[in-house]
Order: sequence, then structure tokens, then C-alpha cells
Amino acid sequence: MLFMKGASPRPGRPLSRAFAAVLLGVCSAPALAQDLAADINTLRIDADVVWLSVASALVFFMQAGFALLESGMSRTKNAVNVLMKNYMDLCIGTLVFWAFGYGIMFGENSSGWFGHSDFLLSGADDLEYTALLFQTMFAATAVTIASGAMAERTRFSAYIVLSVVVTGLIYPVYGSWVWNGGGWLAERGFVDFAGSTVVHSIGGWCALAGIIVLGPRLGRFPPGKKPHGIVGHHLPQVALGGFILWLGWFGFNGGSTAAATTAIGAINLNTHLAAAAGMTGALAFSVLCRIPLLLTNAVNGALGGLVAITAGCATMAPEYAVLTGFIAAAFVIGGSALLAWFGLDDVVGAIPVHGFCGAWGTLAAGLFYLGDPFNLERIGVQLLGIGAGILWAFPVAWLLFRVIDLSMGLRVPQRYEMQGLDYAEHYEIAYPEFSEIRLHRGKPGVN
Amino acid sequence: MLFMKGASPRPGRPLSRAFAAVLLGVCSAPALAQDLAADINTLRIDADVVWLSVASALVFFMQAGFALLESGMSRTKNAVNVLMKNYMDLCIGTLVFWAFGYGIMFGENSSGWFGHSDFLLSGADDLEYTALLFQTMFAATAVTIASGAMAERTRFSAYIVLSVVVTGLIYPVYGSWVWNGGGWLAERGFVDFAGSTVVHSIGGWCALAGIIVLGPRLGRFPPGKKPHGIVGHHLPQVALGGFILWLGWFGFNGGSTAAATTAIGAINLNTHLAAAAGMTGALAFSVLCRIPLLLTNAVNGALGGLVAITAGCATMAPEYAVLTGFIAAAFVIGGSALLAWFGLDDVVGAIPVHGFCGAWGTLAAGLFYLGDPFNLERIGVQLLGIGAGILWAFPVAWLLFRVIDLSMGLRVPQRYEMQGLDYAEHYEIAYPEFSEIRLHRGKPGVN
Amino acid sequence: MLFMKGASPRPGRPLSRAFAAVLLGVCSAPALAQDLAADINTLRIDADVVWLSVASALVFFMQAGFALLESGMSRTKNAVNVLMKNYMDLCIGTLVFWAFGYGIMFGENSSGWFGHSDFLLSGADDLEYTALLFQTMFAATAVTIASGAMAERTRFSAYIVLSVVVTGLIYPVYGSWVWNGGGWLAERGFVDFAGSTVVHSIGGWCALAGIIVLGPRLGRFPPGKKPHGIVGHHLPQVALGGFILWLGWFGFNGGSTAAATTAIGAINLNTHLAAAAGMTGALAFSVLCRIPLLLTNAVNGALGGLVAITAGCATMAPEYAVLTGFIAAAFVIGGSALLAWFGLDDVVGAIPVHGFCGAWGTLAAGLFYLGDPFNLERIGVQLLGIGAGILWAFPVAWLLFRVIDLSMGLRVPQRYEMQGLDYAEHYEIAYPEFSEIRLHRGKPGVN
Repeated sequence: MLFMKGASPRPGRPLSRAFAAVLLGVCSAPALAQDLAADINTLRIDADVVWLSVASALVFFMQAGFALLESGMSRTKNAVNVLMKNYMDLCIGTLVFWAFGYGIMFGENSSGWFGHSDFLLSGADDLEYTALLFQTMFAATAVTIASGAMAERTRFSAYIVLSVVVTGLIYPVYGSWVWNGGGWLAERGFVDFAGSTVVHSIGGWCALAGIIVLGPRLGRFPPGKKPHGIVGHHLPQVALGGFILWLGWFGFNGGSTAAATTAIGAINLNTHLAAAAGMTGALAFSVLCRIPLLLTNAVNGALGGLVAITAGCATMAPEYAVLTGFIAAAFVIGGSALLAWFGLDDVVGAIPVHGFCGAWGTLAAGLFYLGDPFNLERIGVQLLGIGAGILWAFPVAWLLFRVIDLSMGLRVPQRYEMQGLDYAEHYEIAYPEFSEIRLHRGKPGVN
Repeated sequence: MLFMKGASPRPGRPLSRAFAAVLLGVCSAPALAQDLAADINTLRIDADVVWLSVASALVFFMQAGFALLESGMSRTKNAVNVLMKNYMDLCIGTLVFWAFGYGIMFGENSSGWFGHSDFLLSGADDLEYTALLFQTMFAATAVTIASGAMAERTRFSAYIVLSVVVTGLIYPVYGSWVWNGGGWLAERGFVDFAGSTVVHSIGGWCALAGIIVLGPRLGRFPPGKKPHGIVGHHLPQVALGGFILWLGWFGFNGGSTAAATTAIGAINLNTHLAAAAGMTGALAFSVLCRIPLLLTNAVNGALGGLVAITAGCATMAPEYAVLTGFIAAAFVIGGSALLAWFGLDDVVGAIPVHGFCGAWGTLAAGLFYLGDPFNLERIGVQLLGIGAGILWAFPVAWLLFRVIDLSMGLRVPQRYEMQGLDYAEHYEIAYPEFSEIRLHRGKPGVN
Repeated sequence: MLFMKGASPRPGRPLSRAFAAVLLGVCSAPALAQDLAADINTLRIDADVVWLSVASALVFFMQAGFALLESGMSRTKNAVNVLMKNYMDLCIGTLVFWAFGYGIMFGENSSGWFGHSDFLLSGADDLEYTALLFQTMFAATAVTIASGAMAERTRFSAYIVLSVVVTGLIYPVYGSWVWNGGGWLAERGFVDFAGSTVVHSIGGWCALAGIIVLGPRLGRFPPGKKPHGIVGHHLPQVALGGFILWLGWFGFNGGSTAAATTAIGAINLNTHLAAAAGMTGALAFSVLCRIPLLLTNAVNGALGGLVAITAGCATMAPEYAVLTGFIAAAFVIGGSALLAWFGLDDVVGAIPVHGFCGAWGTLAAGLFYLGDPFNLERIGVQLLGIGAGILWAFPVAWLLFRVIDLSMGLRVPQRYEMQGLDYAEHYEIAYPEFSEIRLHRGKPGVN
């Protein structure tokens, strides 16, 4: 029941014991102090849950950002398929992370390599549920990164298998090394506050394995000719996706305090400065390299800055946040060129943005550590963590994609790719009134 | 004035009495304890208002979700009209709920059937204003549900009358039975935590009455032929609408605690799990029934799961939240087929999603009640509440629509429907550069 | 590190001193009371930072609202350019406000005319960082207002210069008069709670100077003919932009408390009522003036109401908030007609919405001041503040635009304007598959 106006304004929660005792004047001073201290502690935990719940909502919304950005950077004929993959990795990922992933990542971790309790979490207290929801949103972020790079040619069912493996195995195992108190990287002092490596690089290396096994889209690298840049079909959607991701990052980084604390202020300022510097950097490098001032590069520059600041946002001065974001833009622009040079086809630039900038940001978190910058030992640990991420995620993902490819098939048939996956896999068209394809729907329930 | 840097960092609020007393060392221990307890209580209320304000903003944003989803599922020629109806029911609904609805729903309720005070609320305290704003967003949600089902053929002025009656009468009267401490269903222990029935089913039954009186769109059920599924014009907009609604639900359910409390954690976890299970269910049933994997069905599956978990999100274990959401998908898919079989034309599937899943979720809240599941008495009360919702909302709405139809006309003339309501009722086109219709605007002020 | 499940649920923050002392039973009563009071104070500051961080995120999101609204009201050929300008004023504005603007606005202000400390803020405490982030979002709002009015013909590089000058000089100097404790308007009791004048009117007067220097778009006022209303290309995007702006305003106004306090409830209720009344007013005036019921006018009506309530939202009864919003709609509709009558071309109606309604709202904050309405002295101070805003912002902005025009050129060449700025300045097309222009991209990195 919501508001019981007839009753007290906050039904279901009685007056605090201390407040009631004071009103009634019926208790001794020491007992009262104990009650007061307990009230304060309860209120603090309540405030933590409120903040984490808000942050969870913000990180959830990043799924919309990814969906719009990736769909907008794809062609019209695949717009629905990209959206569906983003929705499905969220849904499957949520259920799998609840069933397995959370236990592997945050369960009892006696070996230091993975957890082994808290599967299918139920009967837990509200704090643990709050943490599970927040972590679920992170797991969903990790898996969705691959969908953008692998867009426009990956089989829908294969992508669902990928979602299961990333949220149930690849992401939580690495995560347990860093964010589980018993993890071996945690014990070495590896700094990755909100997941430049844990979430973004891991997602990026999975994406890299994916596009290697998949191969480029038809016509992307025509033999004997210059590479053909395939442009996205809806740039305002890309811009909106970028804004939503930027917004969500205030929950992603700010929420990683796991508590209502003043540190959120500095963290979110750094987050915002790095994003602004990343986009400014993308334009500066575009002018320097005589590339047009593209919206897609600008948005990816901001995202690169956001990914990069994620590791060190809690332990960096503002001027270093600006520097971290600005340099990230170079990885975005340069990384895209590098991939194209290798004949790799990353539809949205996910690997430069999440993989390369995630690694750069994890290094930057060591380089620019507040009060102790440029400490070689710390930099060594950061490089160890970055390397461990690559060596874990890339081979496992590559193996997974090979197995999928040899069994069910990772890539759609060539005819499907030419028709577009919307028609071929969903019998649905993004903008049917602006398309020449006509659908014939007659059965009830199929509208 | 915002920040007075010259002055203290938080102007306008002096140091707490207890803190000042401690700093000055000028008071006795009992007086101090009293001050401390009062400070804690003030801070708790402040935290409640912060959380409810955030939740209000999230529920407000659901209006954008409905608008995009409904407009995207309509045809281009009615895209603006759908958006305008969503905007107008929010605006009219806000003013009417402030003037009448809130008083009927939460005013003094001596009879148990409706309140009768607090109209045109003014001079109230901040807590009451906070509650009014939060409740206004709920009222606006209830009314907007009908707009989607009745899209593409309802007269604009008639829809405004509907908005007034739903937010001023139909919704707040039923609401007073459940959420007003003096309501007769509240006294029987009816569980509808955040409004599966109060908001969603009530909206759904109004929508059902509406499409019965209206009749189907031209060409939806061609005589002697199979029903013709009319596809929406902009699926990425539908997908974004779905994401925004999902996001808003964290405020809708989480905010229904009406307090900053750890219970938000479990509530929002259940909310998210049910949504994920609903969408997963929609795809599972699609595979089973050999229906294509449609984005529209997937989004409606998630929404059905969200509607269903709304009643029981605070009193259900996570595994039951998953089950509740999964089963809701069957109501979404099956309900759409059922409506079509009856020749009823629900443009967006609002009746299955809000009406049927709302009823199912209200039942589920009884079936899976934490610590006391499958209690027949409780299930009986839930069925009573569900039935009372149908018996109140459907006949009153049906009567209203009949009266509108006989007086001002509920449905637009056939020529308007063929031209599209954007041109006929607003002289405005959603995407004028991609349309063959040309507008001629010359008068100042009309641009 | 995020969650250390092996360790305590909230790592990095030890138990409060008082709570620990109570648990251990090892301290005297006075010392304990002191600890308790300090704990409460810490928790209050934590709550303030949480709320301001949420509000900052909401105000940030308004950038997306402006971008969508302005892009949707422009033509397809300029859609990317408008988005890029919105993104770039945010990025450049963020860096410039950190470097200069914040110090001018909130630094030591011995003269009463501008501050002169805290440039390139670093090494500050978390509270100050929190304030800087919140204020950065306001600065970015002020500058983005001009982009809409001046859309479709302003040179990209010229717009970047404008962003620097507005966030580094025009906005913070006026802001220091009102929101810096030492400001001369602050000392006279000028009421502008969240910035009807400080943010919106200042932005509006800059926009007015801009469109005077720029001149109207080609074809907007054909000589010897009636003015030609150029319609926006994507109205659902306009509608979404409106919803996002409305959402963000709950942070804009509610966050201007700078504290977690119950006042947020009344403030956000007033905000919402004024918006609803503004949109309702726009429709009422449209019916009265026999103008079609346009979505663009409805959205601008809501925005006008929001701008107008911004000054007085904390010091007005709900019925006056409704009145303030309703009257704002007249300024929106009438103001657009007035501008067109003068041959001024404001693409999105930014000057009526932000300039005129900002001035009206600042006056209304004096007229309807809670507990002391219609006080002539207060009204005089409000008029002084409104006048000071015009006399500061308009001439400085006009001079700036003239200097830009004479040096680098404010307006694009006529050929660019006809081709569209997307192609001419970015070599990018918003919807390439729905356009006849074909881009040829071959170089790596340019995709």
C-alpha cells in the first residue's frame, strides 16, 4: 500500500526507537545513546540503498544508449536485429547472472580464481539484493559491447549463446579476480574502480575475437579496392545513444562507491571532464589529421574518455581526468584506423572505444594515482591486470566463437545478410512505410 | 539563490541544534539526546523526500516511454496525434488531479468509498506536496494507457474529455478503495503494492471499453478476409519507448515504498527480473508457437512482466518474480490473439499488457506472498479486488464513451482517418520532408 | 574495488565512531554525544552530495533534450550540424567553465562584479567538486540556448568561439551578481532561485543578438510575399526532446536547493504544475487565436512554463505556479509572432521560450512571492535584475557576433546553406539511406 493518509505518513515503518523513547521520556541515557547510534546506522544503510538503486537505474539505461548507438550506426535493414540483440542480452544476461554469474563473481572465493556460492540468490537480505541488481547491470553492459562490433552479420541464436557464456563465465570469472575480496588481482592492489578493464576491456576483447572469427561484412573490404566505409543509417539516434550512455556513466562510476558518500562528487566530476575532453580530443585530432568533423567520431571520443576514466575516477585529480580523456580520443581515432588496416570490421568502433581505451584508462589509473603518481610498482600491477584480461577473455571468447561457428554457425547465410537480418530473422522492418519490402501479416497474434 | 560561496556551503539551513550544542558545549545530556533524535528524524524525512522526488521524475519519464512506444506502433500519418494525446493527458491530468483527483483518492474517507477533502491543494507542507507530485505521475500513467489502444481513430477533443474523467473520477475512486487508509479494499488486506490493478488494470479496462465503442481501424478486419495486421511505422522508437518505460518502473515500484528504505533493493531486483523474464518468455512462446521473433512482442513481453510484478514486488521472492514475469508473457501473446479473434483492435496491445497482466500480477501477489504463499483467503481477497476493478472501471468508462459518442462524437470522420489525424486535426506532419503531403504555412506564429 | 564480499558489505568506510563506541561500550556520555552529532552531520552532507549528483545527471540530460528538440525543428540537411553544436558547446563549455567560468562566478568576489579565484579547480574537497559539476551543467544549458535560434546557417567554428565566450564570460559574470554571496544583485535581495534570468534569459538575449547579426535563413522571409514558415523535419524527436527537458528540470529546479531537504517536494510540484499549465495554455491560446493545435507550440508552451517557474519555484503557492505557467504560454505564442513580424528568424522559438518567459518568470517570482505578494519594492528589485540581464548580455553578445562576423565570418556561405551544413561542414548525412546525396568514404578511420 502506497500512502495511507488515514494513518501515519510513512506506514509500515514505526517511529525510530530512540525518537519514540525521547518523546515518551522513558529510558536511561546509555540505552538511548545506543538506540541513537543504531538509528544513524540504519539511516546510513537506507541512504546507501537509495543511491545504489538510483545508480542501478542509470546503468540500466545505458542499455538503451548502446541499443540506439549501435542500431543507428548500422544500416536500416538490420536496425531491428541490433535492437533485439541488445534487448536479449540484457534479458538472458540478467537471468544467467542471477543464476550463475553473481555466485562466480561474488560468492565465497577460497581459491582466488572464482566464487562458488550464492547461485540463484534467494532469501538474502535487502543489501545483497541491492548489490545483485547493481552488478547485474554491469554484467549486461559487458556483454552488450560485443553486439555492436559484430552487428549486421551475426546469427541471432549464436548471439544468445554468447550472452550466456559472457554473463555466466567470461565476465564473472575475471570480475572475481578484481572485485571479490579473495581475488588474486584484488590482493595485489590492482586498481579498477568501476571497470575500465573488468567491464569494458573484457567486452572489447570478446568483440575482437568475434569479428576475427566472423570476418568483415560483405562489401566492407572489396578485393583490390580501397576499404569501403559503410555509414550508419540514423545519426540522430547515434547522438541520443551517446547522450544516454554519458548520463548512465554517472551511475556507473558514481555508483561504484557502493555507498552514499561525498566521494561521488569528485568521481562524477572526473567522469564528466574526461568525456568532454574525449570529444574535444576527437575533434582536435580530426582537424590535425584532416578528417571531417564526424558526429560518429565525436561521440566515440566522448565514450572513449568515459571508458578510460572508469578505472581511475576515484583516485585522480581533475587535470589528469582531462588528460586521460583527451588521450583516449587518440586511441579511438587511431584504433579505428588500425583495425581497418588489418581488415577487421568493427561496425561501431567498440574495440577501440572499450578495448583500447579500457586498457589505456587502467594504465592511466596507475600513472596518475592521486598522491602517488608514476609509481613503477603500481604501474606494473596495472599492466599485469590489463594483460590478465586479454589473456583470459580473448582466447576463451575465440574458442567459444569457433565452437559456435563449427556447430550452429556464427554467421548468417550470405542471402540473409544481403536481405538484411530484420527481414530474414525477424520478419519485421524498422520503418515499413519508408521501405520497399512489404510484409504480409494475417495470423492473429502476429501483428 | 544557489550557492553562496562567500557564506556557508549550505545557505538557508543553519547547523543542526544538536551539532551546534555539542560544538558550544552548552547543554545537558537529556536535552542533547532529544535534539539528536530530532535531527535524525529530520534527516530521515529529508531522505524520504529526496527518494520520492527522484522516483517522481522516473515515473514522469514513463510518459515519454508511452508516447514513443504508441507513436512508433502507429502509422506515420498519426504519429504527431499520438504524441499530442500523450502530452495532453499528462497536462490535463496533472491539473485535474491537483484540483479534484487527489482529494477523492487521498482526502478524508469516512465512507470507505471516496475522499472528500484536499481539493486544489495549497498551503500544505512539503511532505504532502511531495506525495501529490508522486501520485500525479501515477494518475497520468493510468490515463495514458487508453490512448495507445484507441490510437489512429479517436477524436482529439473526445480524448481530452476522457483524460478529465479518468484522472478526476475513475482512477481516484478505485484508488481510494485500495490506497486510502479508510478504503474498503485496504481494510480487507488487498495487496496491490504499486498498482497492477489500481493503475494498470483500471487503465486497461478503460481502454477495452474504448475500443469496443470505437470499433476497429479501417481495414483492420476486412470483411470476408483474414485480419490485416497493421504494422507500426518506427520500431526503433518502440524499442526506446520500452527502455524508458522499464527505467521508469524502478521509480514506479521502488518509489511506492514512499520512504528511503532498504526494501527498495528487493523491490527493484524483482522488478528487473520480472521484466527480463517477461521478454524471455515472449521469445520462448514465439518459438513454441512458430511466430516470428518480433520486437513488438518482445517489448510487450517485458512490459507485461513489469505490469505483473507491480502488485507483489515488495512481497515476493526472486524466483517467483521470474515466474510471474514469464507467465505474463503468455497473457501478452495469448491476449493479443484473443482480442483479434473477437474483432477488437488494440493498436499497441495495451489491454493484454496492462489489463490482463495487471490482473494476473494482482493474483500472483496473493499466490506467491512471501512467507505465506497459496493462502486461499488471501487469494480470495485478491480476486475480489481484481473483480471490483473490472466492475467499476469498465461500465463507467463504457458509459462515458457512449455519451461522448452520442454527443460530440468519439471517432473522427472516415475522411480524417484516411488522411491521417496529423494532417486533419493538427495540420502538422511528423516527417514533412519524407512525406508527399505539403503544408502551407504563412501566418506569423504558425511555424 | 566495488564490492568486497569477503569483507564487510561497505568496504573502505569503517563503522561510525559512535556506533563502534556503543558496540564496545567504551566511552563516556558527553564524548559519545559529540560523536553522534558528528555522525549525523557527516550523513547529512553525504545525502546532500547524493542529491546534487542525481540533480547534476538530470540537468546534464537536458543537453540531449535541447539537441533532439533543435535538430528535430531543423531540416534534415542540418540535423547532424545541430547535434554537433549541442555536443560541442557542452564539451567546450565544460572545459572552459572549469578553467575560467567557475572562478569568475563563484570565486572571491570583493568588488561585487565578478570573482577572481578557483580557476582550473584542483585539490578541492568533494563538496566543492560536487558544486562545480552541478554548476557546469547550468553553464552548458545557458550556452546551448543560442544554438537553436541560430540553427541552419551559423558557421561551426564561429559557434565554438561563442561557446567559449558565453561559458567563460557572459554567463558567469551575470551569475556572480546573483548567485555569488558578494554579488551586487544578491545583496539587494534579487530572487532568481534556479535561473529564469541567470540561465535562460541570458541565453535568450545572446540568441537574440545572434539572429539579428546573422539575418534570417534563405527563403524564410521572401521579399514581397508572406513569411514562409519552415517546418522541422522530425516531430517525434521534438516531442522526445520536450519530455527530456521537462524531466531534467526536476534536477534543475529541485537541485538548486543545493541540499537534501523537504523543500524539493514543493519546488518540483510547482515545476510540474507550471509545465502542465504552460502546455495547456498553448493549446487554449491556439484555440482562441484559431491557430492549429501544433505539437511544436505545445512543447514550447510547456518549456515556457518551465522557464518561467524557475525563478520562483521555491517561493510560490501551487495556484500561482499554475498561473505563471499559463501566462508564459501567451509569451511563447505571442513572442513568436512578434519576432516574425520584425523579420527575425528564430528556428526553434528559443527567444520567446527562454528570453521572454525567463523575464516574465523573474517578475512573477516577485509578484507572487509566498507570504508577501505584490510588494512594490520587491517587484522593483526583480525588474532591476531583469534589466541588468538585458543590458549586460545583449550588447556584449552583439559585439561578439559582430567581431566574429567581421573576422572569421559568422554565417556560412550561401552555397553551404543550400547544400545543408551536414554535407558542407561535416561530410556526413543524418539519414544517408533516405537521402539522394551519396558520400564516398574510403580512407581508414573515416567511417
